[in-house]
Amino acid sequence: MSFSPLIEQLITSLRCLPGVGPKSAQRMAMQLLERDRDGGRQLSEVLAAAMDGVGRCSQCRTFTEQDTCQLCLSVKRNRQLLCVVETPADVLAIEQAGGFNGCYFVLMGRLSPIDGVGPEQIGVDKLMALVQEQQVTEVIMATNPTVEGEATAYYIAEQLQSRGVIVSRIAHGVPLGGELEYIDGGTLAHALAGRKVIES
Amino acid sequence: MSFSPLIEQLITSLRCLPGVGPKSAQRMAMQLLERDRDGGRQLSEVLAAAMDGVGRCSQCRTFTEQDTCQLCLSVKRNRQLLCVVETPADVLAIEQAGGFNGCYFVLMGRLSPIDGVGPEQIGVDKLMALVQEQQVTEVIMATNPTVEGEATAYYIAEQLQSRGVIVSRIAHGVPLGGELEYIDGGTLAHALAGRKVIES
Ligand SMILES: [Zn+2]
Ligand SMILES: [Zn+2]
Repeated sequence: MSFSPLIEQLITSLRCLPGVGPKSAQRMAMQLLERDRDGGRQLSEVLAAAMDGVGRCSQCRTFTEQDTCQLCLSVKRNRQLLCVVETPADVLAIEQAGGFNGCYFVLMGRLSPIDGVGPEQIGVDKLMALVQEQQVTEVIMATNPTVEGEATAYYIAEQLQSRGVIVSRIAHGVPLGGELEYIDGGTLAHALAGRKVIES
Repeated sequence: MSFSPLIEQLITSLRCLPGVGPKSAQRMAMQLLERDRDGGRQLSEVLAAAMDGVGRCSQCRTFTEQDTCQLCLSVKRNRQLLCVVETPADVLAIEQAGGFNGCYFVLMGRLSPIDGVGPEQIGVDKLMALVQEQQVTEVIMATNPTVEGEATAYYIAEQLQSRGVIVSRIAHGVPLGGELEYIDGGTLAHALAGRKVIES
């Protein structure tokens, strides 16, 4: 005994969302069916549009449905200063912290040889090309302070230093093992201001 | 500064799901975009199908995309014994507890004059018609042991008793203020077995 096939499918599909177990999926399905069919329909439409329409910014690699994201198109940003982060959520976190007016490059991950994630997968070639193209003078490595995030920062730092670019790492203030997107704005702003040049 | 318009829409739409705040919605959107676009597409399709296709069983009023649900169509169930519950999730909980072989009637709510929910909204007329049609001899009131659930049980009991139907209430074992769908199977089975006739 279970719900009807279509409702069971709905419950199963909702479990593709992170943090949604069988009981929450059931509660979500019931809530939508009982009280918010319009909300469910709208979610369906937006999901379809986003899954097919969202690609990567041609410059910084962040998620966007446009060819180039708003931030890369802005004339107010300093193109000689580039901040390298792991995810689009990290860009948002740094922007919300305020105080940074350079551009970004989003790795969409970090080096992880065990999972088959090498320099190519995180776009290192593209980063080098962008640095040259935009005549970037300083790159701030703002990958997460995890083992893999640190390794990624130092790998990229080496590549950049051999091309004469100044590379800095965001300062302490970001707790070890923490994830950038969950850090409060003040701490993040402080970490950016206190960045240190990585000696080559 | 925020994500691109389409991604912001996705985050907003995900918040129609119960228990999903701004941070979880953002995490869900990023996870789908980064790692599970096929899952997102499938969720979109199933959502659309369910929001438009799921109606109510013509007999017991539970959610189903068919005219009559599997349980009401089953020849193995005792049609003279009817269990009245508030929601489809309650049907599932009682079925999973085992030991009940009658049919169900789903109120899809409970009496709540303050919210404009009267006998009509919970299908009391339809229940009376079903009781007569199926020559039901006993109705078990398994509404939740809340103030409104109790009031609903006693209101329906009165209507049925005046027609000579035996009405029982599930026994203690269900904690006061609790919700049926979250109770373990053993407690529920016990509550059903220990039901008591409501004296008229
Ligand atoms: Zn961009
Ligand atoms: Zn039915």
